[in-house]
Amino acid sequence: MTMRRAPGFGGRGGTAAVPFLVFCACLWPGATACSRHPAPVPAAYAEAAERMRDIGLREEGAFALLGRITGVGPRLTGSPGAAAAVDLAVKMMNELGFENVHAEPVTVTRWVRGGKEEAEILGASPAEAIPLHVCALGGSEGTPETGLTARVVEVRSFEDLARLGPDARGKIVFFNRPMDRTRTDPFAAYGQAADQRVKGAVEAARHGAVAALVRSLTFRVDDFPHTGLMTYEDAVARIPAAAVSTADADRLSALLAGGGPVRLRLKMSCRTVGQVPSANVVGEIVGTDRPQDIILVGGHLDSWDLAVGAHDDGAGCAVSLEALRLMRAAGVRPKRTVRAVLFMDEEFGGTGGRSYAAASAREGERHLVVMESDRGGFVPVAIAAGAPDGPVLRRLRTWSVLFEPLGVRTFVPGGGGVDVGPLVRNGSVPVAVIPDAQAYFDVHHSALDVLRSVHPRELELQAVCLAILAYVLAEEGV
Amino acid sequence: MTMRRAPGFGGRGGTAAVPFLVFCACLWPGATACSRHPAPVPAAYAEAAERMRDIGLREEGAFALLGRITGVGPRLTGSPGAAAAVDLAVKMMNELGFENVHAEPVTVTRWVRGGKEEAEILGASPAEAIPLHVCALGGSEGTPETGLTARVVEVRSFEDLARLGPDARGKIVFFNRPMDRTRTDPFAAYGQAADQRVKGAVEAARHGAVAALVRSLTFRVDDFPHTGLMTYEDAVARIPAAAVSTADADRLSALLAGGGPVRLRLKMSCRTVGQVPSANVVGEIVGTDRPQDIILVGGHLDSWDLAVGAHDDGAGCAVSLEALRLMRAAGVRPKRTVRAVLFMDEEFGGTGGRSYAAASAREGERHLVVMESDRGGFVPVAIAAGAPDGPVLRRLRTWSVLFEPLGVRTFVPGGGGVDVGPLVRNGSVPVAVIPDAQAYFDVHHSALDVLRSVHPRELELQAVCLAILAYVLAEEGV
Repeated sequence: MTMRRAPGFGGRGGTAAVPFLVFCACLWPGATACSRHPAPVPAAYAEAAERMRDIGLREEGAFALLGRITGVGPRLTGSPGAAAAVDLAVKMMNELGFENVHAEPVTVTRWVRGGKEEAEILGASPAEAIPLHVCALGGSEGTPETGLTARVVEVRSFEDLARLGPDARGKIVFFNRPMDRTRTDPFAAYGQAADQRVKGAVEAARHGAVAALVRSLTFRVDDFPHTGLMTYEDAVARIPAAAVSTADADRLSALLAGGGPVRLRLKMSCRTVGQVPSANVVGEIVGTDRPQDIILVGGHLDSWDLAVGAHDDGAGCAVSLEALRLMRAAGVRPKRTVRAVLFMDEEFGGTGGRSYAAASAREGERHLVVMESDRGGFVPVAIAAGAPDGPVLRRLRTWSVLFEPLGVRTFVPGGGGVDVGPLVRNGSVPVAVIPDAQAYFDVHHSALDVLRSVHPRELELQAVCLAILAYVLAEEGV
Repeated sequence: MTMRRAPGFGGRGGTAAVPFLVFCACLWPGATACSRHPAPVPAAYAEAAERMRDIGLREEGAFALLGRITGVGPRLTGSPGAAAAVDLAVKMMNELGFENVHAEPVTVTRWVRGGKEEAEILGASPAEAIPLHVCALGGSEGTPETGLTARVVEVRSFEDLARLGPDARGKIVFFNRPMDRTRTDPFAAYGQAADQRVKGAVEAARHGAVAALVRSLTFRVDDFPHTGLMTYEDAVARIPAAAVSTADADRLSALLAGGGPVRLRLKMSCRTVGQVPSANVVGEIVGTDRPQDIILVGGHLDSWDLAVGAHDDGAGCAVSLEALRLMRAAGVRPKRTVRAVLFMDEEFGGTGGRSYAAASAREGERHLVVMESDRGGFVPVAIAAGAPDGPVLRRLRTWSVLFEPLGVRTFVPGGGGVDVGPLVRNGSVPVAVIPDAQAYFDVHHSALDVLRSVHPRELELQAVCLAILAYVLAEEGV
């Protein structure tokens, strides 16, 4: 576009604020009544929100915080990188002026990838072998040191696999059901394909297979394998499991469609080391009136090992830290305590979340609201809060004017996550800022999840949204 | 995030569709009444929308179309690239099976950049000169062949400049007011800073300056200058005008803050060649019942010359073509005509839009609705339509269920643009799909506006939204 047009939605003159205001006055009814005149929001809330928005967008502090976190490198649960991240997070919270900063011990499982994985489709001669881009799934056993070689059989589902029956015996089962591109919610598409990754090895082993190879969970067709957690069951053989890039999955599938036997060699030296000490990191702004009532914001400090986990979940950590930083910078100290928790081990077992909830219960703390940010550092588009007709969701709708300048006008039931799940089960209300995530699975769990895949301004808008949410909930309670 | 969580907003179980449905049933009242039970949408509309959505997301045709358009290269108005784009667009529309495909002649101004611009801050010796990243603004005169050298004076506004008065004489006026980062709408921030680019040279020349240097219009601080149209006035000296990258603008400003004289050498060989023939490209799906009534979708085929104009506005062209392709692929032929128009010369004078409107008026055509897409190829977040209480906006709100699966739940007054402006002034109703545009000005009018800056799935969601909009409007009229 050129500049002859006036700014704002569609350029019909004036400033952009005008259509927004017209809109918000007529489209956003109060919580319980369907009214064209929503209840006014306290002026103090509006002023604090504006201050935090102005400071946040001027300084883009969330991206700077994210740069420090990703600067540690990959932060795989139990790894030296994760330990360094714990130390850094304590240091950052102290520098930011948070109160009661400490690391809370957690015992986690350490798994190591070992050397770079190798996979190739065998040809008539070694020169004709076709290398594949693969990576071990998290938690997988390795192959024998010399690798394993077997015929490949392709399936799209566990039902396909059951139909194969004894034909899977001695083979590498190739799970190749793509994420459904026609699902507009990428998380829904992910959820419908991830069974292959999580349980593919167990199901393949039940049928006598020697390994599982799983199509990477992304809409993109490229050369990057995407890892992620897989699990074993006690009574079932522990066979190796790897992810293959989508481009190579398509190539392998095309070869198999030719009908002839396709043999694949796979070599992985990953292994589970055992239990090691680690920690969640906690810091807060103590509430003035009801310090025992906690509004929690958090993300997970651990990442996968193929990259620095910028979106997953450096972003969630960064926006949580930034939310408290913005409150302090804007000079607001709410009635209730706002606590930032950077959880350990979201990706590899959720021990951080469980351990935190258990300790919290022992100490008699009251977590009124828990806000986990773990959907990428993208622009915020909605707020999710508790049950469909819950009081928190209804209350947040009455405050919609605080979020409209951020482009957030949608309020839905929801919230929660792996780390705060145990607290929600104990009665805390889940709330979350929901970002647009169409590009999330492009990078998720792969070597592409790097700092430059995060947009500073989009991340900051998410942080500002979280700060305003935490602030008003800490003022009002639930 | 890992996979223990169920999919959907915040992972509270079930499929993602559930909270969406709960939400849309209670939050989106009908157009005129405030009701929890909106009027049902005709089943045929819902089915057509779902078919177009499924085809679009499965095939991502908009990105393929965009790849063909950007494959031509830069398409500066009047250039050989623009001429090649006209030929290609006619070919593409014919291949896609559009009807009445033709190019409509337009006479445009051709301006050429000439050789790469040079700019440097002079030092005590040639070795100490500091090169700057600059580019001529569109329409600017060049400098003398050997360049021009003058002292630099910095201002932030035309008021600053007026206060300088005679101190600007013989100098290069450096306009350095940044886009306001605290504006959440990037177009609003752009609109408040673009006067420097459009009129900086005229205002500087009024005060006797020899050139204008303008801070690039982007939130980013980097080394890429952003061009764009500038204008002259008849009675005012035509001095050269260039954009300087934001990083270099900051550096130059820091040097000037030192207080000593800063001299700059600028060399540009750009010039206006004159009037040349070009064309808009038009194709359509003829309506079954009221073919004389037109629903227009369009973007502009011309781009700036520093890159291939992927977002600005290859994306608008691609989604317009894709909208008609989706209708055909889904087997829907609406009552009224849906016409795609790829306009020439949006960036350099808007002659394409004016010429189209004049020809259309001569032929007695009725453009009921005009939808210009020129805000980047990002994920759609809102629909803008006409006046605040206009019938089209009210009607679209009653159809909100068609757009919710795309993540579009916001309806605001607005729409319009440079190309359809003349039609709107003649009574057509402007409608537009509004994408999230936080990253738009990162690339806008710069060498960064390349194909890989567009996300295929985000672009397709925008195209599907446009297709559904065009289809229902072509069925219902206004």
